[in-house]
Amino acid sequence: MEDAYNFFSKRASLMKASEIRELLKWVTEGKVISLGGGMPDPQTFPVEDILDIVSKGLREQGDKLLQYGSSEGLKELREQLIHFMNWRGLRVDDIDNIIIVSGSQQGLDLLGKVFIDRGDIVLVELPTYLAAINAFEIYEPQFIGLRMDDEGIDMDALEGILKGLKAKKQKQKFLYTIPTCQNPSGISLSLDRRKHLLELASTFDFLIIEDDPYSFFTYEPLEIEHLKSLDKEGRVIYMSTFSKILSPGLRLGWINAEEEFIEKFELAKQSMDLCTSPLVQYIAYGAIKEGVIQRNLPKSKALYKQKRDRMLDALSQFFPTGCRWTKPIGGLFIFAWVPEKIDTKEMLQDCIQKYGVAYVPGRSFFVDGSGKNTMRLNFTYPNMEMLDEGIKRISRAIKERL
Amino acid sequence: MEDAYNFFSKRASLMKASEIRELLKWVTEGKVISLGGGMPDPQTFPVEDILDIVSKGLREQGDKLLQYGSSEGLKELREQLIHFMNWRGLRVDDIDNIIIVSGSQQGLDLLGKVFIDRGDIVLVELPTYLAAINAFEIYEPQFIGLRMDDEGIDMDALEGILKGLKAKKQKQKFLYTIPTCQNPSGISLSLDRRKHLLELASTFDFLIIEDDPYSFFTYEPLEIEHLKSLDKEGRVIYMSTFSKILSPGLRLGWINAEEEFIEKFELAKQSMDLCTSPLVQYIAYGAIKEGVIQRNLPKSKALYKQKRDRMLDALSQFFPTGCRWTKPIGGLFIFAWVPEKIDTKEMLQDCIQKYGVAYVPGRSFFVDGSGKNTMRLNFTYPNMEMLDEGIKRISRAIKERL
Repeated sequence: MEDAYNFFSKRASLMKASEIRELLKWVTEGKVISLGGGMPDPQTFPVEDILDIVSKGLREQGDKLLQYGSSEGLKELREQLIHFMNWRGLRVDDIDNIIIVSGSQQGLDLLGKVFIDRGDIVLVELPTYLAAINAFEIYEPQFIGLRMDDEGIDMDALEGILKGLKAKKQKQKFLYTIPTCQNPSGISLSLDRRKHLLELASTFDFLIIEDDPYSFFTYEPLEIEHLKSLDKEGRVIYMSTFSKILSPGLRLGWINAEEEFIEKFELAKQSMDLCTSPLVQYIAYGAIKEGVIQRNLPKSKALYKQKRDRMLDALSQFFPTGCRWTKPIGGLFIFAWVPEKIDTKEMLQDCIQKYGVAYVPGRSFFVDGSGKNTMRLNFTYPNMEMLDEGIKRISRAIKERL
Repeated sequence: MEDAYNFFSKRASLMKASEIRELLKWVTEGKVISLGGGMPDPQTFPVEDILDIVSKGLREQGDKLLQYGSSEGLKELREQLIHFMNWRGLRVDDIDNIIIVSGSQQGLDLLGKVFIDRGDIVLVELPTYLAAINAFEIYEPQFIGLRMDDEGIDMDALEGILKGLKAKKQKQKFLYTIPTCQNPSGISLSLDRRKHLLELASTFDFLIIEDDPYSFFTYEPLEIEHLKSLDKEGRVIYMSTFSKILSPGLRLGWINAEEEFIEKFELAKQSMDLCTSPLVQYIAYGAIKEGVIQRNLPKSKALYKQKRDRMLDALSQFFPTGCRWTKPIGGLFIFAWVPEKIDTKEMLQDCIQKYGVAYVPGRSFFVDGSGKNTMRLNFTYPNMEMLDEGIKRISRAIKERL
């Protein structure tokens, strides 16, 4: 046979195993403390409740839950999501505005498929969610990165970019944002800027994808409204996931948007996986209906607040001067800058092999190739002692390099 | 806002709601007998066994099954699949030759993504599986349809096509086939032709995708070997699914191929859904390990054999002369030809509204636009009485048109 590689599409030839992923892979096997993941604490999984729900589902309607379902998703779950989103301050009128997806990642792949033609301009934050970059990249957009400060995207800079594009008769398709407790930075977009962003979207006519996995996890009072709630023109496509509020192992998320978008998403989803598992959807349905998620959230938040505080304390105590980091009001991550002479990607290998600790080098989150001296630190998965010890170990590696 | 349609990718603009799908949609709501689906009989779902397995899994390793999993799939399931495939006469040496996918449909989307560049030549049977056409189409290949007779693909015709392509310095990427109890035709590729196909693949250097959901359901003795077993060069990519042997609602399938392919599939899958639900994978793991699937298969086969026979009897009894149909030795479908003056797509509307019966018009399965006077009939989902009554109703519609 010819070399297998000759059969791959150009698209596939661009898919490379990330060195970082390869490095992080053997973290699970060794004695390495990982601050590199983005996983919830398994303590927060309501195992018993899930078992009750799935037993009830299989007993009462096994035939239906084990059969093919519809591409748009289980009607009962979409109905519960209306209540759930209302409870979160997001008004949704009709189940036809909701489609269930097999996890946020499928949602991102689907949005790439439905919106991006090769060369299309896609605006993203600097830094932004790595897996969103990966999902969109397949469709060969041209990314433009947007500078952020403590209040989120710099609106003047954004307006400048939009004007520049207009002058060149180029047009942005959409802006992808995680406006609340962002991954990886932990930053939240201020209310004023949210309003400003929507004005710009209206003036320059683009769509906004509001990815919202983390607004459930705020540890300080925060005055925000969802972009979707502020949107008067139907140009915000809202997406969220059950991964952090219930369980990532269900692979379950949803998208809320205007019906004409949802209809197209449904067609795309047919070709992607026909439907999401009705059995899994029933678990999420039951977990909203029985109030499992609503009851669990305060407990998870309290746990994660403690962990965030512990990591912030450890950073203050151990990280050398010349380092700085975000103080996120919520979410799962702290983002840190080490002195500029340090390349965090290069340092990671040492950290894993010599110091027994891992993080995600920040550069992967920047579509403009910047962020060489940054890192993302997760505080939800490791236990308290590991948070302390992990930060201590990283600080040793930093100090060695100074 | 500008018209939403202005934001869609060219790819998305090509996605149209199928009229047939729209017609079949309201079949579930009305008093229409549907021979149009491709669903297993829910009687075959081992609901109690699944409940036992899922309870055990959640109790013993809930933390793991509700957490993120790896993109290649649960190790325990891939190990069990080695035993399972060996039991089916397919030798697999290593779990690195297996990737778990979220249903066959995701497998097809993944193969399209990894192999097809715009304009690439993809060979498919006439007729072939509609959802495979839909999945591949997104990546804009050029389809070439392959004529079949009772023994499957006409090898002389195929060789002619391959020589023609070679003369034009064009090259086929892969041939997609369901060699055993094909959907929609019910035809199985003979053993001689299987060997011939592999020789041609070797001579003309292309890949073969062997889609194998139905070889589990043979109702007559059948002397075949899987293409994957006959393959000496690693050019067969084998895929199958738990949808018919366990439950479609799990959305679970697998691909078996050379490791260099599996590695690329894993990268593609990362961007598609990160991983398939570990909880759902555990159910399939348990169902193989505990012998649930192996014990159930003979019962399902006996049931489906009865149903096939009943539909064949009904066809003989009610369909007017000038009609013919396949006598499949297995699978879920019978494919029928009605007199040429009848357009089965046009007749469907009448069948649903006036006669209360549905089928899938055959034209959608033909990439060359032929098959105007054909239909696919499913015999596994309807009960015995409905099989009889359904065929009776269709024959009334046919007779009215003659």
